[in-house]
Amino acid sequence: MKENVKISRAVIKRLPRYRRYLEELKKKGVDRISSGEFSKLIGYTASQIRQDLNNFGGFGQQGYGYNIAGLYNQIGVILGVNHAYSLVIVGSGNLGRAIANYMYNYKSGFRVTAMFDIDVRIIGRDIGGAKVRDFAEMDAYLAGNAVDIGIITTDKSGAQEVADGLVGGGVKGIWNFAPADLEVPGDVALENVHLSDSLHSLLYYINRAK
Amino acid sequence: MKENVKISRAVIKRLPRYRRYLEELKKKGVDRISSGEFSKLIGYTASQIRQDLNNFGGFGQQGYGYNIAGLYNQIGVILGVNHAYSLVIVGSGNLGRAIANYMYNYKSGFRVTAMFDIDVRIIGRDIGGAKVRDFAEMDAYLAGNAVDIGIITTDKSGAQEVADGLVGGGVKGIWNFAPADLEVPGDVALENVHLSDSLHSLLYYINRAK
Repeated sequence: MKENVKISRAVIKRLPRYRRYLEELKKKGVDRISSGEFSKLIGYTASQIRQDLNNFGGFGQQGYGYNIAGLYNQIGVILGVNHAYSLVIVGSGNLGRAIANYMYNYKSGFRVTAMFDIDVRIIGRDIGGAKVRDFAEMDAYLAGNAVDIGIITTDKSGAQEVADGLVGGGVKGIWNFAPADLEVPGDVALENVHLSDSLHSLLYYINRAK
Repeated sequence: MKENVKISRAVIKRLPRYRRYLEELKKKGVDRISSGEFSKLIGYTASQIRQDLNNFGGFGQQGYGYNIAGLYNQIGVILGVNHAYSLVIVGSGNLGRAIANYMYNYKSGFRVTAMFDIDVRIIGRDIGGAKVRDFAEMDAYLAGNAVDIGIITTDKSGAQEVADGLVGGGVKGIWNFAPADLEVPGDVALENVHLSDSLHSLLYYINRAK
């Protein structure tokens, strides 16, 4: 990978999608693909694909195309999907449980070590292999356990307080499902999942398709 | 809005985000904003903002900027958020329930009229105001009830069959949470929520932030 190259956020957003399509091709036993064929499949233009992947050095070869297994692996390395990550989930409602199960069933690499909630009826339960703890104990837990990622599945009102607690506890990144724009220091990664954005894009196409 | 203009998918993806930020500004009592100020807030370049919003006609005024309430409303009209939509959810596990509650608590406009599952232990229950029905009855239900959007929260294996059933039943759009690339006819809108894409982007920044 080229060092000292500033990769735009838009490219980083697209890389996981490239990787998903490459994984499907790999499963189907396909060895290589041209940017033109890849374009038809993934829906970006061939020149966009070449430009995106060129950010990371010469993956493609003129007249041969991209080596699927190689590109799949290299994107995985760039993203860091082959490392192991410990996670905590704050909020053990339906969404928190859905994410806990999702992570539990994930291929590997992710381990939810604890969930936190303020609801005494849920504290102490086991969800997807992780124990639900009292949110009041989160600071102490994070002080004693190295956690890479905090996942926020609370409602909007408490989300910033949760984020502050996670940041204070030393997490490297926050995966936020609460409909709130959180403030975190620059050295903490933040990825927001705004379900309404996706729903609203869908509405646009529904209304155009009539 | 300009008619006969082909709006790119990337722009449509950004519109809900513009609307979210405009809503926050409106709540704070801000009346107008320049593309430069908006750029600092939302993280797109000022020229990107002007170009995006120009797709829909002259929202901004030189020396004045964008009228926040007006732009917010116009984007809402473009997206179609002010219409009423009926929805069904297929899959009543944790994710299905989370989405049912999410839609139930949504401001307005969306009504989940039924959920479907194959699990006899769940069929007949009420979740977020919607009754869980036997998936075997979905065709008959869709034949008798006009449904705009089908939401798929099943696992990957059954997702295409569910999508086929929804399409056959006349839905206009599918909001898919299953980790599957679905095939639907061109006149049915499809929006996929790939949670792993968002998670993998987060990993990239976690590994760079070290």
